[in-house]
Amino acid sequence: MKRYLLAALLLIATTSLTAQEWEPLFNGKNLKGWERLNGTAEYKVKDGVIIGTTCDSKVNTFLATKKTYGDFILEFEFKFDPALNSGVQFRSLSLPEYKNGRVHGYQFEMDPTARAWSGGIYDEARRMWLYPMTFNQAGQKALKNNEWNKARIECFGPAMRTWINGIPCANLWDDMTLEGFIALQVHAVKGEELYGKHIMWRDIRICTTDVEKYLTPAEQCAPEVVCTMNVLSPREEAEGWELLWDGKTTKGWRGAKIESFPAKGWTIEEGVLKVQKSDGGESTNGGDIVTTRKYRNFILTVDFRITKGANSGIKYFVNPDLNKGAGSAIGCEFQILDDANHPDAKLGVLGNRQLGSLYDLIPAPANKPFIKNQFNRAMIIVKENHVEHWLNGVKLIEYDRNNQMWEALVDYSKYQKWPDFGNAAEGNILLQDHGDEVWFKNIKIKELK
Amino acid sequence: MKRYLLAALLLIATTSLTAQEWEPLFNGKNLKGWERLNGTAEYKVKDGVIIGTTCDSKVNTFLATKKTYGDFILEFEFKFDPALNSGVQFRSLSLPEYKNGRVHGYQFEMDPTARAWSGGIYDEARRMWLYPMTFNQAGQKALKNNEWNKARIECFGPAMRTWINGIPCANLWDDMTLEGFIALQVHAVKGEELYGKHIMWRDIRICTTDVEKYLTPAEQCAPEVVCTMNVLSPREEAEGWELLWDGKTTKGWRGAKIESFPAKGWTIEEGVLKVQKSDGGESTNGGDIVTTRKYRNFILTVDFRITKGANSGIKYFVNPDLNKGAGSAIGCEFQILDDANHPDAKLGVLGNRQLGSLYDLIPAPANKPFIKNQFNRAMIIVKENHVEHWLNGVKLIEYDRNNQMWEALVDYSKYQKWPDFGNAAEGNILLQDHGDEVWFKNIKIKELK
Repeated sequence: MKRYLLAALLLIATTSLTAQEWEPLFNGKNLKGWERLNGTAEYKVKDGVIIGTTCDSKVNTFLATKKTYGDFILEFEFKFDPALNSGVQFRSLSLPEYKNGRVHGYQFEMDPTARAWSGGIYDEARRMWLYPMTFNQAGQKALKNNEWNKARIECFGPAMRTWINGIPCANLWDDMTLEGFIALQVHAVKGEELYGKHIMWRDIRICTTDVEKYLTPAEQCAPEVVCTMNVLSPREEAEGWELLWDGKTTKGWRGAKIESFPAKGWTIEEGVLKVQKSDGGESTNGGDIVTTRKYRNFILTVDFRITKGANSGIKYFVNPDLNKGAGSAIGCEFQILDDANHPDAKLGVLGNRQLGSLYDLIPAPANKPFIKNQFNRAMIIVKENHVEHWLNGVKLIEYDRNNQMWEALVDYSKYQKWPDFGNAAEGNILLQDHGDEVWFKNIKIKELK
Repeated sequence: MKRYLLAALLLIATTSLTAQEWEPLFNGKNLKGWERLNGTAEYKVKDGVIIGTTCDSKVNTFLATKKTYGDFILEFEFKFDPALNSGVQFRSLSLPEYKNGRVHGYQFEMDPTARAWSGGIYDEARRMWLYPMTFNQAGQKALKNNEWNKARIECFGPAMRTWINGIPCANLWDDMTLEGFIALQVHAVKGEELYGKHIMWRDIRICTTDVEKYLTPAEQCAPEVVCTMNVLSPREEAEGWELLWDGKTTKGWRGAKIESFPAKGWTIEEGVLKVQKSDGGESTNGGDIVTTRKYRNFILTVDFRITKGANSGIKYFVNPDLNKGAGSAIGCEFQILDDANHPDAKLGVLGNRQLGSLYDLIPAPANKPFIKNQFNRAMIIVKENHVEHWLNGVKLIEYDRNNQMWEALVDYSKYQKWPDFGNAAEGNILLQDHGDEVWFKNIKIKELK
């Protein structure tokens, strides 16, 4: 993958000597070169504009290019009814062997709601959200509702970057599909009042020649999100990130209360580390696992996915030797919980046992950017006594330990009995077995000096 | 009093042209010019040293000068058995009409214990501790136990300053007695094992001529403690301090829930503001009183004295309109409590309802410098969101409000129900009526810009 980075760097130092070659994907008159897939929504051409219209279709409809594209720069304009959700697929596929031809792959999101995730990248019919716009709050202001907007998508190897009206939106590093068609989505809608509404595209053009030369320099793009499975991006490598889990073996991890990795309760399946479902108890099956090493100052990211009603957690500053009895090892916990379905969400004090909270101590805000039924990215930052919890690019909480307020808070909590709780200079990192099925991947750490 | 300040300032700018005149107070041979008062301990002269010896005396014994001294510089050397407590009186009195001739007044403390208050100023048989050495922790290292130590005392108007071995100890501003005798104390002791132990003094000399000229510049003295009754010192005036209570009227104060000062429950007696004893309930008699003004950033000092088992408090960031029901007005509280005798000291969490604590939130340390049965000085410092509680010159707690840890802590406490508790930019200052007799004086504030 390094050649892409090198090319990008070279680009910064050189200047274009020839004009950029653009190829129109839409001739302005008819839909030559396009084909409709999946649903039954209609696409018509009028005054140089492709107009998709919502209808009583049970599935999403796509107007796809017959050709496929790998590395490219795509530009187009779009305007759509603010009652709809839509998008433009790229590097996408429709294969008989995958969900009977269901269009799937990267989607440039078009989201007119208050959530404002336009320009984000959704993995249609596959992994769902890869780049929710929570990772780039500045980009959430790019869309002008009910007006023509200009989109730009740059794809070059694993790098996929988007803009709306010149404002950087997504910046994804992923390698699942590097070539596919481009397709205009008319989303299935529920309710007759949403039939007959329009999504419009015009001036659709693509550049596939000398793409490297015309890429936007990395530092002018949105914050990067890496979705490759348990692999670092070139940026991450350059910045000193390391994989805390290799995606394949138990290397670097052991049971919190034993010297080896638990013989049961944890599985590794296709790059995903899974706590198995047992009785919902705390460390009653395989038990918690911890890193074999301790960490002092760091940024830790963990992608986690919970099953219905699940409870788990990521602990840090863990001293595995402290709790000799039953239950979980002792440390500060980034709580992982299905707030909607697990009873513990209603216990504790004002939400301090809910997802993303510092468990039993500091509640995460109620409006946190958790995405149901898919992987979410937890991030924990430790700089000496200052600690932060982030979720999908949004800071949930921050606190300072080793002071009187911290002691006073701990003394109110269930950690009162543990001497000097949370004040250790360093500790192990722990993934909790709370007897519910929870998935982990992309466990990465950057140690801070 | 301003002439003393002026004189001190002039002194800094001028240089001595004549030699300092010292008068020996002890001739090295006998006790001519001295007389024994109160107790029965013996003083003997041997090898140029006055030796006092402890004995079975029920009261303290003093060897006093027959002459009295007002403004002076006194120097002497002293050595004493580390099992004893002793001191040197200055500006002291023995009057038939006051406790039948009991020696009383300022005492240069000699304290060999771990408390290490040597050089501090105790008001013998009168107001007790005026300058406990908690106000000057650096000075607590001045005494060399079981060795000869050199003392210096400078008295000039209300300014009284002490040194041991050249290290600044006390710096008191007080005007209760401006002239009196000097006296060497042999403290009464309990237990035969303490009889026959020695306190020794030598090279006792005094300067009473051109005293202003030989005073140590103010900036080389210990931190100043002001004990004048509801009067500012020149330093305080220069630094922008104001009296928050005038010592005589109810001006500037009102009932927390009424427009006027409470008609009952509070009295003003000889410069002391007293909550009267009622049923021990919260605001059930006269009720809390608050300043008529609000304050934002400030240093507040309050001298308080509690009666046995008493409960009271100093609140700040108070919003008198918040609690329309029964009980105290709502705000952050510097708790005032007789920890030893009030049941609330054992309630709350790990001491967070004890004296000096931020009530129900952050406990003051157990080893705080509280002095029983006398006035203690509370100090509260507010700089925007950062707040500190001090007692007798020692910082007890500090915290930062308007952040997630603060919210989390408040949510655990009894203040959970009050919206945005403790986060107001400004508020009234409150003295609490908790139905117990508590005394206040020297209520001063310095607003910070």
